[in-house]
Amino acid sequence: MNNNSKLGSGGTLHPDRLFPADPGTRAIARELYNTVHSLPIISPHGHTDPRWFADDAPFSDPVSLLLTPDHYITRMLYSQGLSLEELGVIPLRAGAQAPAPSSAAAAAVLDPRVIWRKFAAHYHLFRGTPTRLWLDWVLSAVFETEAPLTAANADRTYDCMAERLAQDAFRPRALFDRFGIEVLATTESPLDELAHHAAIRASGWKGRVVTAYRPDPVVDPEAHGFAAALARLGELTGEDTSSWRGYLAAHRKRRAFFKQMGATSTDHGHPTATTADLSDSEAQSLFSRIVRAARSPGVDSADAELFRAQMLTEMARMSLDDGLVLQIHPGCWRNHNAALYERFGPNVGADIPVLTEYVGALRPLLNRFGNERSLTIIVFTLDESTYSRELAPLAGHYPALKLGPAWWFHDSPQGLMRFREQTTETAGFYNTIGFNDDTRAFFSIPARHDVARRVDCAFLARLVAEHRLPEAEAFEVARDLAYNLPKQAYRL
Amino acid sequence: MNNNSKLGSGGTLHPDRLFPADPGTRAIARELYNTVHSLPIISPHGHTDPRWFADDAPFSDPVSLLLTPDHYITRMLYSQGLSLEELGVIPLRAGAQAPAPSSAAAAAVLDPRVIWRKFAAHYHLFRGTPTRLWLDWVLSAVFETEAPLTAANADRTYDCMAERLAQDAFRPRALFDRFGIEVLATTESPLDELAHHAAIRASGWKGRVVTAYRPDPVVDPEAHGFAAALARLGELTGEDTSSWRGYLAAHRKRRAFFKQMGATSTDHGHPTATTADLSDSEAQSLFSRIVRAARSPGVDSADAELFRAQMLTEMARMSLDDGLVLQIHPGCWRNHNAALYERFGPNVGADIPVLTEYVGALRPLLNRFGNERSLTIIVFTLDESTYSRELAPLAGHYPALKLGPAWWFHDSPQGLMRFREQTTETAGFYNTIGFNDDTRAFFSIPARHDVARRVDCAFLARLVAEHRLPEAEAFEVARDLAYNLPKQAYRL
Amino acid sequence: MNNNSKLGSGGTLHPDRLFPADPGTRAIARELYNTVHSLPIISPHGHTDPRWFADDAPFSDPVSLLLTPDHYITRMLYSQGLSLEELGVIPLRAGAQAPAPSSAAAAAVLDPRVIWRKFAAHYHLFRGTPTRLWLDWVLSAVFETEAPLTAANADRTYDCMAERLAQDAFRPRALFDRFGIEVLATTESPLDELAHHAAIRASGWKGRVVTAYRPDPVVDPEAHGFAAALARLGELTGEDTSSWRGYLAAHRKRRAFFKQMGATSTDHGHPTATTADLSDSEAQSLFSRIVRAARSPGVDSADAELFRAQMLTEMARMSLDDGLVLQIHPGCWRNHNAALYERFGPNVGADIPVLTEYVGALRPLLNRFGNERSLTIIVFTLDESTYSRELAPLAGHYPALKLGPAWWFHDSPQGLMRFREQTTETAGFYNTIGFNDDTRAFFSIPARHDVARRVDCAFLARLVAEHRLPEAEAFEVARDLAYNLPKQAYRL
Repeated sequence: MNNNSKLGSGGTLHPDRLFPADPGTRAIARELYNTVHSLPIISPHGHTDPRWFADDAPFSDPVSLLLTPDHYITRMLYSQGLSLEELGVIPLRAGAQAPAPSSAAAAAVLDPRVIWRKFAAHYHLFRGTPTRLWLDWVLSAVFETEAPLTAANADRTYDCMAERLAQDAFRPRALFDRFGIEVLATTESPLDELAHHAAIRASGWKGRVVTAYRPDPVVDPEAHGFAAALARLGELTGEDTSSWRGYLAAHRKRRAFFKQMGATSTDHGHPTATTADLSDSEAQSLFSRIVRAARSPGVDSADAELFRAQMLTEMARMSLDDGLVLQIHPGCWRNHNAALYERFGPNVGADIPVLTEYVGALRPLLNRFGNERSLTIIVFTLDESTYSRELAPLAGHYPALKLGPAWWFHDSPQGLMRFREQTTETAGFYNTIGFNDDTRAFFSIPARHDVARRVDCAFLARLVAEHRLPEAEAFEVARDLAYNLPKQAYRL
Repeated sequence: MNNNSKLGSGGTLHPDRLFPADPGTRAIARELYNTVHSLPIISPHGHTDPRWFADDAPFSDPVSLLLTPDHYITRMLYSQGLSLEELGVIPLRAGAQAPAPSSAAAAAVLDPRVIWRKFAAHYHLFRGTPTRLWLDWVLSAVFETEAPLTAANADRTYDCMAERLAQDAFRPRALFDRFGIEVLATTESPLDELAHHAAIRASGWKGRVVTAYRPDPVVDPEAHGFAAALARLGELTGEDTSSWRGYLAAHRKRRAFFKQMGATSTDHGHPTATTADLSDSEAQSLFSRIVRAARSPGVDSADAELFRAQMLTEMARMSLDDGLVLQIHPGCWRNHNAALYERFGPNVGADIPVLTEYVGALRPLLNRFGNERSLTIIVFTLDESTYSRELAPLAGHYPALKLGPAWWFHDSPQGLMRFREQTTETAGFYNTIGFNDDTRAFFSIPARHDVARRVDCAFLARLVAEHRLPEAEAFEVARDLAYNLPKQAYRL
Repeated sequence: MNNNSKLGSGGTLHPDRLFPADPGTRAIARELYNTVHSLPIISPHGHTDPRWFADDAPFSDPVSLLLTPDHYITRMLYSQGLSLEELGVIPLRAGAQAPAPSSAAAAAVLDPRVIWRKFAAHYHLFRGTPTRLWLDWVLSAVFETEAPLTAANADRTYDCMAERLAQDAFRPRALFDRFGIEVLATTESPLDELAHHAAIRASGWKGRVVTAYRPDPVVDPEAHGFAAALARLGELTGEDTSSWRGYLAAHRKRRAFFKQMGATSTDHGHPTATTADLSDSEAQSLFSRIVRAARSPGVDSADAELFRAQMLTEMARMSLDDGLVLQIHPGCWRNHNAALYERFGPNVGADIPVLTEYVGALRPLLNRFGNERSLTIIVFTLDESTYSRELAPLAGHYPALKLGPAWWFHDSPQGLMRFREQTTETAGFYNTIGFNDDTRAFFSIPARHDVARRVDCAFLARLVAEHRLPEAEAFEVARDLAYNLPKQAYRL
């Protein structure tokens, strides 16, 4: 018996939401969904804060929990003329560029209730977006308050949520349990000492929260603070990270430590999917150039790209030894809005996908390790045109390669459906790996998995209704997509 | 009470056309559509001839009105082996390359009725195309004759249309009124003296026909006759258009004049979406090179591209002052068929879309002015792969950026639906701007808006049927898409 | 009366498979399909072995017939960890790289029944793929055995199939007849002497099997064995194929010979769609460089690309004379998996589509010959993003250009539907050419055509249900797509 059922079927939301309108197909979708809706949640990749589960302290208020850190929300409100400051986002440095009173101060004194009212007044902007679906669900199923949010109920919903957040049942661990989460992965830098993960393990709490190894800060020579990160990596591991051997050894040590803290995967967020397979001497000399350049301003951008490319292959080589699953998340132009980045830093909703090439880019890696049956590489995309053209054909051939689910902008009803429609016929279901919520928005995790399960059941229902798949097999696939595949793919 | 209802629901066409087949969803779509189908038409961007409304003379005949100038029609007939000459398109220069009798003469003597019969005999080629939907509507709802066109009814429909065109009720202003058009924008070059617009205003007629500023002839150094256009721009404004300062001042003067003639927007049809943000001295020196090169053959194509790119940013700067909305229509390879272009000139159906990149291309402009709340930039695409990958994320972030509707080849039932399916989840409805007919085919304007309204209602009906949007909110959105958004976005 | 009806409606498979679930739309689809399902099969492009029809010998066993040579099947099983050896694929060279016992030997002794059991145990991998649809059909309708395949019925189905294959009714010519094939094209190299085709013609058998001219081995300077192929072409034709004139003359002679053997088309499988229109002296000098380089290792890859490009234009020029239809199949990265290619050679499931550009690439060819009404160029794509952006606009304009159907990875229910959804509104139905099965899997030919007919009827049914096309016209279109268009386009 799992706990997800405690959430019921989504509060006051319609039980048939996201199912196809045709009554016959809808009935099939409903039957399929009934067998998967309360399966435990496997969340193998995401960005929640492990501190929540270590400290188990109450969340402070609805706005700093649900609104300010959610770049899906802030980007949409910003696009329609609201400033990030009035949404409570705090600029990196107080004052200088800000209108008086200084933004930091302004943010400090902004009443969350005022921000919530502003959000409510603009809630219509989210019509037709997944944010709206997730939020309605959080309001209705988690907080058991009114949904949808309106200007009229803004104060009531705020009060209700604030009151609930003070209750023990709304602390992180209680919710983890109530949400029916079997395992939740966070994502940390190699420089993170994983103190929260250690605390969780030491606490005796039964919730399974694991880390994942995201070495971008020490792999991307163009990352802010790369030189210092390299030095810190050396300190943490006792390796000489200015030498290629020492640098690789340092990775191996940190990977081993992450694995002790439950990690079953690594994750790599590169601008492109480019990989390389240099000879050892080429790699060594490239690394020397990188290290030299990192000390002075001006790493060569071609060298930086080549180094990131080579490191994916190095990570795959290490994965063959330690069994960590390798994830690649390429193709986003981060911090596209220069003024906003300067003022607020990253992750404020100004990351934009770009056309991404995989066939040539992944070839060095795949030709080196793609035929390895003991290796799992999971590749994601923000460029949907690659689903049928590049990714399904690649995953439908290479034993090591699997397709990650619809990601980020495409983690939405239509986006998830396009993923199935454009990958299944070439890659099948079994070269995909179920769903990732990939979120820092803890409260929305069950809603996101619920949307994915509903969409997968809708897709399967159509296959059944059109006599493309016998119903009995669709039940098996539904369960595999919701539970078995993510667990197997991530070795959880 | 508006006049569109005078057209009824499309003559003998089925009242449920374009609605989803599922009866429940169809019923919702019908309800939604009933509330928007007779809203006034806002046509904020198009290519009708202002002379029609200035002179209010009867249209001459069905063929020169509906067929010969419509490149959707001529391209399809041409693709199936008909010559442009036999469709009445007149070559640029008589004789030389043409079979005897010379084409110009041939065209002059071609009986429109013969061309109409030929069209009727090939009407099956348009099955499944929007042209077919629009034409059926024009025949049925405007001319109240038989639809669809067949070889058998070709003479009858021709006679009926010819007879109607001689009636006062079929003059431009009467139709403008009958079509329920609240405002109609045409598009003119800065070199146009806007005499027709002046005449319309002087006439006392209440119809609102406004111009739009399309400076391509004086902005694109590769445009035919650029040097002469520059000189003429100088004459019209009394500015020295061989200097950067004078050239910019000339634009400002013409924009002001266009604004007096009702313009609320500018429009830019560039090969790519590339923008630039040069320093003043760089821009000045680029302009000098352009001016020098324009006098002798052989402008450098990189310079030409950079100049067009910079001018988009200059136009945005001017828009901040004068409030004109900036439209960008990129990504078309114009006049792809060299032989046809040489013989007939542009706009005969040989323009082909190309892969178009926006994320890097628009960054200079967006980083300069994208955060301005008082600026509106409307971007269009012929590359549908950019909807979900690039354009929805950009419009869902930058306050200045909005998405134009499905354009040209994609202004069709499936095309309009793909636009909503691929942009809504990331950009929402409110970063889009309703519909543009973008047409020179005056008679088809209501049909085009009707198709767009039906498709939007079909999309919304699906959201309602799948419980993704409460029905009450869908009614609001339907009205916003059909009427409020274009009016607001274009400041009409 | 045609023979396809002997297959019934697909054995025990559901008669409504692939039709839309909405009952009203389904009823229309069924009506449409009933008028086309037993039309004769026109198979104008494919890769079956003409020896089958020349010798009319029984097929040996189910596995070497249906499984081992089918790269759709081997790629999927390989992607999930099975080796090609255990599927009976024989390495190029025995031993060296293989585990003991040597693979060639292993393959030689592998019991087909064991392979069949393995396939059955992994049949779930094909859920949602067209391979599953085709195989279910072959089992059910051709072999009249149980479908779907399961681990439990693997032995029974194997026995049944093996028994049937020994019967006269399962010999190639009998099946050709039973399948209702009116004409079937194979594809041969200019170096092929077409002995099997000659034997078929000499045999007095009424079945129409024709060849097609695929000159890649003597056109692609990067093809394995190009120099030897050029020499052999010279021997076969008595032309000096080291001179440009002689080389072109040799092509003309072989084309004439292929035409005698029934060919109505040529076919060109190039990495890109690039074409060129060089002057005669440029072409001559390019050919000289190619010939020189072909003798020593290291043809320049830009020269190779330019030569392939020019040869498409040369082929078009010859087509104007001899009337052969020119097919272009571009955009596949062949043999992406280097280790597998080295071990097994081509066509083992490691070909991956790439982003493909057509608008600039085809322009030299189209500007030279695109306006010719007597020429037919059929272009295919593996890059679905080009359907609406590039290919439908090009085919909707140039008289010589037609769109081939959804190809290879996209020859599937969703893929075929996307083709219609994304091309029809711009190119109409009549710039497309019906269906190609493009297969070497003879037994699946009727299933593939059946899927295509069902999907086309489903698409048309939607147009009818949404009142976008009168039902009477849909019946005409259904028949045109299933029968008339391929016959006309390929001049069969």
